[in-house]
Amino acid sequence: MKTPSGYRYASTYAGIRQAPKDDLALIVSDTVAAAAGMFTTNRVQAAPVRLGRKHLARSGGYAQAILVNAGNANCATRNGDRVALLCCRAVAQALRIPVHHVLPASTGVIGVEMDHRPIVAQIPHLVTSLSAERLPDVAKAIMTTDTRPKIAATEFCVGRGTVRIAGVTKGAGMIHPKMATTLAFVMTDAALTPVELYAALVPAVEASYHRLTIDGDTSTNDTVYLLANGSSGVRVTGRLRKTFTQALTEVLEDLACQIARDGEGARKLIVIDVEGTRTDGEAAQLARAIANSPLVKTAIAGADPNWGRVLAAAGYAGVPFDPARADIWIQGVRVCAGGVGARFSESELAAKLEQNEVHIRLRIRGKGRGRTRFWTCDLTENYIRINADYRT
Amino acid sequence: MKTPSGYRYASTYAGIRQAPKDDLALIVSDTVAAAAGMFTTNRVQAAPVRLGRKHLARSGGYAQAILVNAGNANCATRNGDRVALLCCRAVAQALRIPVHHVLPASTGVIGVEMDHRPIVAQIPHLVTSLSAERLPDVAKAIMTTDTRPKIAATEFCVGRGTVRIAGVTKGAGMIHPKMATTLAFVMTDAALTPVELYAALVPAVEASYHRLTIDGDTSTNDTVYLLANGSSGVRVTGRLRKTFTQALTEVLEDLACQIARDGEGARKLIVIDVEGTRTDGEAAQLARAIANSPLVKTAIAGADPNWGRVLAAAGYAGVPFDPARADIWIQGVRVCAGGVGARFSESELAAKLEQNEVHIRLRIRGKGRGRTRFWTCDLTENYIRINADYRT
Repeated sequence: MKTPSGYRYASTYAGIRQAPKDDLALIVSDTVAAAAGMFTTNRVQAAPVRLGRKHLARSGGYAQAILVNAGNANCATRNGDRVALLCCRAVAQALRIPVHHVLPASTGVIGVEMDHRPIVAQIPHLVTSLSAERLPDVAKAIMTTDTRPKIAATEFCVGRGTVRIAGVTKGAGMIHPKMATTLAFVMTDAALTPVELYAALVPAVEASYHRLTIDGDTSTNDTVYLLANGSSGVRVTGRLRKTFTQALTEVLEDLACQIARDGEGARKLIVIDVEGTRTDGEAAQLARAIANSPLVKTAIAGADPNWGRVLAAAGYAGVPFDPARADIWIQGVRVCAGGVGARFSESELAAKLEQNEVHIRLRIRGKGRGRTRFWTCDLTENYIRINADYRT
Repeated sequence: MKTPSGYRYASTYAGIRQAPKDDLALIVSDTVAAAAGMFTTNRVQAAPVRLGRKHLARSGGYAQAILVNAGNANCATRNGDRVALLCCRAVAQALRIPVHHVLPASTGVIGVEMDHRPIVAQIPHLVTSLSAERLPDVAKAIMTTDTRPKIAATEFCVGRGTVRIAGVTKGAGMIHPKMATTLAFVMTDAALTPVELYAALVPAVEASYHRLTIDGDTSTNDTVYLLANGSSGVRVTGRLRKTFTQALTEVLEDLACQIARDGEGARKLIVIDVEGTRTDGEAAQLARAIANSPLVKTAIAGADPNWGRVLAAAGYAGVPFDPARADIWIQGVRVCAGGVGARFSESELAAKLEQNEVHIRLRIRGKGRGRTRFWTCDLTENYIRINADYRT
């Protein structure tokens, strides 16, 4: 995987989590980069979320480093703001950059005081071990209940130049749309202004992370950071802006899809397509209700083509529609036509539901051209096991 | 348990469900009763819901019988409307009453055609076996994944008269506020007009069934019917209306609480009190988010006093509040003071969380006098087991 030029990465174990597995990572751009961020909409916001917003405001949308830890969310803590600041300051000193060019992020347990000292102590080591090859290590260090690191990249050519975009993310549980969602760090070597960068990030997140749900819970720490350092020499203007936004969306969709596939306890990725509503927003509202329904998700876990639950979930989404004009397909098999059961082989479809990717399609007839795609996963006994003793 | 006078009950096995367990029940008032109903807000409504509304509209709020079956929801079916009507007609003929004095209700799987013939064939037997003592049999016949029948009653004296109220309900999964919720049938021997009866039912449901959630899923069949046949001789007017509404609320709260305690796979009842918001509605919004959070519910299942999840759920409820003015108690132990962790013994509290009733209290300081109580249950691996193969 070719990653954007002008970035270096490092990770280490700072003892924040008990398991001896890297829990601290640093992303550094060789030069000051344009930066954009999107954050959780939760009223309860972790200290790094507050500080990240502040740094972006103070720098006018520029940054050179991202410091992230797993194992402690640094949220609902007495000294959270100070701890986040001290960690950023240590990075700033080691790199000789202004403190507001360091963006912080944390993930882990809420309400446990975080000690800045072991983190600060690791910063010199992190800085000396920076390498352009170590983005996969960052992906590993930010994992919590994730079972796999998540990384995605793309590139496109412009004349003699090549723009690269690469990102890492972590997810698993506590993921829900209507927020920036979970942690994601995306780097590009394209050249954009902070305003252009933010204008590209918003629709890309809308089409990816805001179409993803695991359990309907919205975390206090969710953050997406996007850096653009311009080291490709390609300035993104005019028609290129659309190309860039598309490439960025592709990377974020890839990452979002990896999160859904690795949802806590998940065995199956569920892709939900809704079409025929008046607007895309209505389609998303229907898809979200289906994606969040524990009854739909447990039915898929049990390979049960129980389409009545899909129709019932659509029914309480708050979107007016006539059930007699609703059709449902599961794995390409029409199971419901005009609001009532279609003829299909239950046993054949049940067999298809054993696959690790399940496709649900809902079509409303005669309302409009609204459509959306949504991602979630099945709900299994392992979700309960993971979450019933996350801390113990 | 003393039940209201002037009602008789019967149940039988009609072969609608495979397990040989009563699946058909009849409730009959000796005289025409004032009747009120509240129904699901789901866009997809089962045939009996549509017919029940129609009968109440046509009779102007009177009824004499309720026919209910378990095992098939008669929803999203081709012949649903006709099947529901034929079943009501059979009851009307056997009892020699108008068909619109028969109120139907169904619960069970969605999207499977229902056969009216085995039901119609059982009506004469049901009618001849009617008895004032058989309300508990009705409670049993309407069970689906419920593990226990649910019945509640109360009475109050007025001069020389006594008013009795009794009800049965079924629940377990697919229960959510913002709807009439699940099936509940409540009988009273008080005398009220249909308008007075409905005016008492709405606040009573608001304070009970609308404060209850199991999994956030809203069914297509949820129905509450309330009958008042006046056979106590007590006419509910003036100040008595408040007394009646309170007694009705008490019965519905009792039933709602029984449903939460028997939630699918539940080991624990969770009672959530929220106070200090600007309005009761805001308190309910916060309580609902906490009650619906899979992360809170799995933590309680695991006896983990993870209060950060309670605060995070409140944070995404959509109610503005300052986390620094939030306090949380679990089992009476203050775990969070002013948005950060309080000092408490985790091991002692974990031991208290092994009890089968868990109390969570959230207080917001300095906003107002809004408050609410909400009921839910913990989320265990058994919920998944039950729902992953409900049909198979």
